[in-house]
Amino acid sequence: MKIAQIAPLWERVPPPTYGGIELVVGRLTDELVRRGHEVTLFASGDSQTLASLEAVYPRALRLDSKIQERPLYEVLAPSQAYQRATEFDIIHSHVGVWALPLAEVVSTPTVHTLHGRFSRDSGEIFGYHSTQPYISISDAQRQIDLNYVKTVYNGIDIGNYSYYPKPQDPPYLAFLGRFSPEKGPQHAIAIAKKTGWRLKMAGKVDVVDVKFFEREIAPLIDNRQIEFLGEVNHAEKADLLGNASATLFPITWDEPFGLVMIESMATGTPVIGIKMGSVPEVIAHGKSGFVCQTYDEMAEMIPAALELDRKTCREYVKNNFTITQMVDGYEAAYEKVLQGSVKNYPSHPARLYPLPKIVS
Amino acid sequence: MKIAQIAPLWERVPPPTYGGIELVVGRLTDELVRRGHEVTLFASGDSQTLASLEAVYPRALRLDSKIQERPLYEVLAPSQAYQRATEFDIIHSHVGVWALPLAEVVSTPTVHTLHGRFSRDSGEIFGYHSTQPYISISDAQRQIDLNYVKTVYNGIDIGNYSYYPKPQDPPYLAFLGRFSPEKGPQHAIAIAKKTGWRLKMAGKVDVVDVKFFEREIAPLIDNRQIEFLGEVNHAEKADLLGNASATLFPITWDEPFGLVMIESMATGTPVIGIKMGSVPEVIAHGKSGFVCQTYDEMAEMIPAALELDRKTCREYVKNNFTITQMVDGYEAAYEKVLQGSVKNYPSHPARLYPLPKIVS
Repeated sequence: MKIAQIAPLWERVPPPTYGGIELVVGRLTDELVRRGHEVTLFASGDSQTLASLEAVYPRALRLDSKIQERPLYEVLAPSQAYQRATEFDIIHSHVGVWALPLAEVVSTPTVHTLHGRFSRDSGEIFGYHSTQPYISISDAQRQIDLNYVKTVYNGIDIGNYSYYPKPQDPPYLAFLGRFSPEKGPQHAIAIAKKTGWRLKMAGKVDVVDVKFFEREIAPLIDNRQIEFLGEVNHAEKADLLGNASATLFPITWDEPFGLVMIESMATGTPVIGIKMGSVPEVIAHGKSGFVCQTYDEMAEMIPAALELDRKTCREYVKNNFTITQMVDGYEAAYEKVLQGSVKNYPSHPARLYPLPKIVS
Repeated sequence: MKIAQIAPLWERVPPPTYGGIELVVGRLTDELVRRGHEVTLFASGDSQTLASLEAVYPRALRLDSKIQERPLYEVLAPSQAYQRATEFDIIHSHVGVWALPLAEVVSTPTVHTLHGRFSRDSGEIFGYHSTQPYISISDAQRQIDLNYVKTVYNGIDIGNYSYYPKPQDPPYLAFLGRFSPEKGPQHAIAIAKKTGWRLKMAGKVDVVDVKFFEREIAPLIDNRQIEFLGEVNHAEKADLLGNASATLFPITWDEPFGLVMIESMATGTPVIGIKMGSVPEVIAHGKSGFVCQTYDEMAEMIPAALELDRKTCREYVKNNFTITQMVDGYEAAYEKVLQGSVKNYPSHPARLYPLPKIVS
């Protein structure tokens, strides 16, 4: 298949550190190329990819301190991709609402991956384009009624995560994530204090969360029972997760995915999570961790988590949440869209009259 | 001609009070309908127009306090307009960068009116779409090298402005505009103090300008020589301008247009302006006012301004800056684009294969 991938321009593909969407786009794109597809990646010029790179803008927008009106740049990647629409069998957009108007007017079909949670306003805009083909990253994400083609879970490169057969002694619980109220670090601390377990925490403190961190988290960090490691790189992250007896995922909002759960289980460490968002779809309850109704219940399940087989956790990720399954899922979604067998997808008579390539 | 007009959604068309773009779009649209064109206006649902109204969103965005992410809504009007592209001979966009990607991929040509000054970022985005047909609202606005079809000046409905044959006695100078540094109210005051003239000032103080107003303007208002009237409605505005001996336009930036100059001259009051932005194109030097090199020179020209014929000022507006000339200009621009005789406009083989109407 001839496939266009439209990436956000904020970070390059793949991103140097953080950047969930650009990371997924990079892995998807490279694997599609390995599988023999002709892929063109529309991304920032400093990206690195096995696909043909169309440098929409010379470098990642984050690196350009002169940029003040960020939203204006959202038109660039869709604009350049859709001008070449007739070169592709399918266009895969990772840029949210910004591709919607273009997807409606060209004959080449687009499939849109929804990478985050709907906001009030984005939900409104997607609602105006509900018949476009969408891919959700979990079933739980489907809070707005749209034409969903498939759920395709984000997958990791499991080769990047070593298997840790045994947790470290003395034992500890791990928390990894942004230090915002939604991620629940305050609940992780409460669970540790209630049970007497040691807790090691790592992650970013965004500017918007500094007040929360200083008021609710910092006073409880004693660096004996409750440790804060700050931001960690990949190796430190894998170590933190792999050496833990269990990882806590005490979120307070319906997070659409939650890669840290996958990363933990890949190292062999089971995850104890709260029943919100995608957690019930990602944790195999009783096998790779536990899905709990309350934060207290999370604390109660720690002993049971220690009994779970660590090898099983890793196998579970291998069979369900690697790049292999992710790209299998996307290929199936592309086929479904191209066969026109997607429910509610408007039949496009325009397809019979492919838009001629614009001579420039 | 079958014409689509795409208006911003922030205000309804026409706007209840302020809203320069929505005001121009409303006047243009209604006059085109009067001249026999089939016009569809894509705007907020509370708009009032002689054209067919396509209610892109139920009401003006400004009225919806629940909206937090304003930029997302920029896709709505272009999206709905371009899905119907094949119904029109030409699409006239007033929404800046947001129509650019769509204009590039459909066979119906678009003409884009540039309603404001380029920012660093908008200039960048327009630069990526430089071959689209653009209409500037003054020659001075053309600070970025784009494919300009024509300059079409904004026009007023001169019936809305009475003619004031004589200025008021005791005499005064007028200043009308936002109280921001760019509009130069501080220079208007300096000119008045230097010459001993009375000055009457009116206009908005935006939130961002409150500090400037409190520091630089308020201390100089004594309500004897220097008067501040706050915001004024249309009747008060016409009175303020019409009764003045001259209006000062002491801007400090390259303003692309400046409707207050037209409004003043329409009442018969000449304008003394600084040589920046569109001023030299709008003031007929020595006839309807004076274009000065410095603010001091503006002060020196006041006596000469009193000698100018007030009827000539009004005639000058009647012949150049009313809705009639504005719509004449736009009709000519549409013709130019449709004949494909616009310099650099890419020949669109797509035009030979009109995009079939999408069955929904």
